[in-house]
Amino acid sequence: MKFLNFFLLAIPLSIFLHFTNSSPSLVFLFACLSIIPLSGYMGKATEEIAIYVGPSIGGLLNATFGNAAELIITVFALKSGLLEVVKASITGSIIGNLLLVLGLSMLIGGFKFKTQKFNRAAAGMHTSMLLLAVTGLIIPAIFLNSHANPAAEPLSLGVAAVLILVYLLSLLFSLHTHKDVFRPSQEHSETPKWSRLKALLILLIATLFVVIESEFLVAGIEPVVKTLGISELFIGVIVIPIIGNAAEHSTSVMMALKNKMEISLEIAIGSSTQIALFVAPLLVFIGYLIGRPLDLLFTSYELIVIILGTVITAVINMDGRSNWLEGAQLLAAYVIMALAFLFI
Amino acid sequence: MKFLNFFLLAIPLSIFLHFTNSSPSLVFLFACLSIIPLSGYMGKATEEIAIYVGPSIGGLLNATFGNAAELIITVFALKSGLLEVVKASITGSIIGNLLLVLGLSMLIGGFKFKTQKFNRAAAGMHTSMLLLAVTGLIIPAIFLNSHANPAAEPLSLGVAAVLILVYLLSLLFSLHTHKDVFRPSQEHSETPKWSRLKALLILLIATLFVVIESEFLVAGIEPVVKTLGISELFIGVIVIPIIGNAAEHSTSVMMALKNKMEISLEIAIGSSTQIALFVAPLLVFIGYLIGRPLDLLFTSYELIVIILGTVITAVINMDGRSNWLEGAQLLAAYVIMALAFLFI
Amino acid sequence: MKFLNFFLLAIPLSIFLHFTNSSPSLVFLFACLSIIPLSGYMGKATEEIAIYVGPSIGGLLNATFGNAAELIITVFALKSGLLEVVKASITGSIIGNLLLVLGLSMLIGGFKFKTQKFNRAAAGMHTSMLLLAVTGLIIPAIFLNSHANPAAEPLSLGVAAVLILVYLLSLLFSLHTHKDVFRPSQEHSETPKWSRLKALLILLIATLFVVIESEFLVAGIEPVVKTLGISELFIGVIVIPIIGNAAEHSTSVMMALKNKMEISLEIAIGSSTQIALFVAPLLVFIGYLIGRPLDLLFTSYELIVIILGTVITAVINMDGRSNWLEGAQLLAAYVIMALAFLFI
Repeated sequence: MKFLNFFLLAIPLSIFLHFTNSSPSLVFLFACLSIIPLSGYMGKATEEIAIYVGPSIGGLLNATFGNAAELIITVFALKSGLLEVVKASITGSIIGNLLLVLGLSMLIGGFKFKTQKFNRAAAGMHTSMLLLAVTGLIIPAIFLNSHANPAAEPLSLGVAAVLILVYLLSLLFSLHTHKDVFRPSQEHSETPKWSRLKALLILLIATLFVVIESEFLVAGIEPVVKTLGISELFIGVIVIPIIGNAAEHSTSVMMALKNKMEISLEIAIGSSTQIALFVAPLLVFIGYLIGRPLDLLFTSYELIVIILGTVITAVINMDGRSNWLEGAQLLAAYVIMALAFLFI
Repeated sequence: MKFLNFFLLAIPLSIFLHFTNSSPSLVFLFACLSIIPLSGYMGKATEEIAIYVGPSIGGLLNATFGNAAELIITVFALKSGLLEVVKASITGSIIGNLLLVLGLSMLIGGFKFKTQKFNRAAAGMHTSMLLLAVTGLIIPAIFLNSHANPAAEPLSLGVAAVLILVYLLSLLFSLHTHKDVFRPSQEHSETPKWSRLKALLILLIATLFVVIESEFLVAGIEPVVKTLGISELFIGVIVIPIIGNAAEHSTSVMMALKNKMEISLEIAIGSSTQIALFVAPLLVFIGYLIGRPLDLLFTSYELIVIILGTVITAVINMDGRSNWLEGAQLLAAYVIMALAFLFI
Repeated sequence: MKFLNFFLLAIPLSIFLHFTNSSPSLVFLFACLSIIPLSGYMGKATEEIAIYVGPSIGGLLNATFGNAAELIITVFALKSGLLEVVKASITGSIIGNLLLVLGLSMLIGGFKFKTQKFNRAAAGMHTSMLLLAVTGLIIPAIFLNSHANPAAEPLSLGVAAVLILVYLLSLLFSLHTHKDVFRPSQEHSETPKWSRLKALLILLIATLFVVIESEFLVAGIEPVVKTLGISELFIGVIVIPIIGNAAEHSTSVMMALKNKMEISLEIAIGSSTQIALFVAPLLVFIGYLIGRPLDLLFTSYELIVIILGTVITAVINMDGRSNWLEGAQLLAAYVIMALAFLFI
């Protein structure tokens, strides 16, 4: 993760460029780069604080703020009325975690180890969680897509409520009733490296800068679309999820290099599940409260890639082992999807 | 199952209300309630008779009359030309068994037992049966949905013939060539509790009342749609399958409470398979004979929920274990689908 | 395979009929029949040569020329501008191998052996390869199907390039880095039965005749469509794949009769994977070079059957065992799909 610190230089640069009224595309670029290490620091600080407050509340913290950087970016996009970007980045986070992160982890881990094994039972549990989460998320889209729909808002709110409820139940499950079964792997880092104060300060400062940079980033989307001819959809599906999850990506690859594929799987699948069960419905509620109603009407492209990404992950996990070719194939699926989004 | 007997009071009530020309919605309500215990008695009496006639013919009886109550209701709906209700109730039976029945069983069973295990091989066999049955059922819908089609009738008949053939082969398989492998769990109740005569009489009387109440129910659908503003689709997908399968639901939950998840799975998945391979094609033939040709053109909503329900079940079964959260998630998927059907 | 030699008589017959200007439908029929044994000889000769040149280059030969007969037919169809036939035969090869070949093998093998087992890990690896290959193949179709698209050509070329790259990587994987894991079963025939010269000559002569007969066959498609009222789609999806793969079919069934289901699975799934990763993208490139641009815009019917066929195979393989009923059900799914293509 250390080399990512280099991107911290993008913070002063983006601020300077912003206040000197430079090209918004350039501000956009540096805002993107700066969020990569910042989201890493947010995640790391949350983990440290989680250790101090004990496993239960700590698990809750980790689970709730795991995708905080992305949540902040999408809230700003929502505020600016960029609803398509918000939905695209939900899609992109799900497939990015499943295909890009897992693909890279399996590829690079597979270079070092011929075959990497992981517990099928745990993988199966993560997979069925993911599948059910994704099903809930996409059903309103499928039903409403084909209806010009006054029902879009009430149905989206109803579904969001059910999803949040399932999310709370899953926290109860993993932090209380089945804490031994579900996340044994999280026990690995028990001694904090930062003092309580340091962790809190870093969390505060990183969050502050993520807020600033998110505002720059969102403000830059329209100019970038006009200047570079990339679609909003592409920015939402590919760019935002990559920068929002870069820190987690590097952790996942590192775990694969230590032959701990189970943790890689947990990061990738768990993060996708969290997007579907927590971030997406939360955005629906926030949108409702700030007067920017966000329905869950994903485009048919988004639905297809979410479904395919989920099914692929389910099948890959089925055999409890991975190798470099499976990694390469996941990456190929991601590249083909990205190409398709680029050409639309 | 005993508390369901309470609903037998709905029989005289519905008849009284019918002949005093009361609100058809009220007759509809009591007809629905009365079918719940009646279908239970039909099932119980069939099982008892099956024990007397020996395993082979008995298995045939159980397999053929397992969904008799629902078959009677849908035949009346067919006769009244309510083709959409018929297809909706086929859909609803499949997802109701897979998501609602299995979900409730896993949830309530999971409250009592931390993790419930079941034989993966048997579960795998049920699942692949289900998947192939469902595939056969939905293919004509997918092909014809997009064509305004003189081919709808011949193709539906052809497909129905293939499905019935597969159904007969699966009986040959489970009752003859592989009887030891496929349904070992059905050996559990070998001594009849009722005399032969009692069983026959109860079967006869229950069937008679189901016929009467089905007529009331079907006659009430249109008034209910007009009065309450619920769609025919919703009645077909949600209401009819719940009342037609309530007795089986309670058996499945009871088996889960005894930690016999295998039997719960068999009830839920077996019933869905039977709907796809036997009830649906039979309705196509009956419709053809009575001059109400029923094609297999399900709506795209119905296709989606059938496919998702089947895939979810396949993945859930994959790991050979269940817990309360998986049950809650299946129920959540069902609730979200029901919400969506409500809002269409 | 010996009884297939009988069809060699169709070669002189088709040539005679062609040069006496007989009914093109008759020439089409005999061209079809003649290709069945010819493609068998091409396959057999390739295998023999593969033994002489050693495992690595031999594996490459087998992998590259495994679907040579079909490639030749489709190249002629491409040259004649029958783009729909080309795409239909790609579809038909994939589902034909998965449902027809595997179904027949499981059915006939299941008559002899009550339950046939196979290695789940190997089956799982083949399945995830297939799934990823198919995903790559269908994504452009899904994205472009709904857009009238100047992007069809560049996207198809881009995707074809990614697929070919994955194909090369999978050869590197199975012939070099993981040769012990992936195809242990291919070690079974190590002593050649033909001399080097005989193998080369037979390969040459068989290929020559396949070229001639493919030209006859393709020239006969339009007359057959007009005379018999069968659609081009049906010829592409059902007829061409059956004759192009007949030899492999008989090998697969023979292996099932020897209780070597693993080899049957490998033939069926491996062949489908090769169509998706190698034959289809190669045709895109050839089409581009000869000025008949072939996009990967499959019809929605084709997409559906490819997806269903793949998912069914994945689920069937999941439990590592097969029986005659599973075979019958795969065949039923194939028959229903064929019926649907017939009625369109």
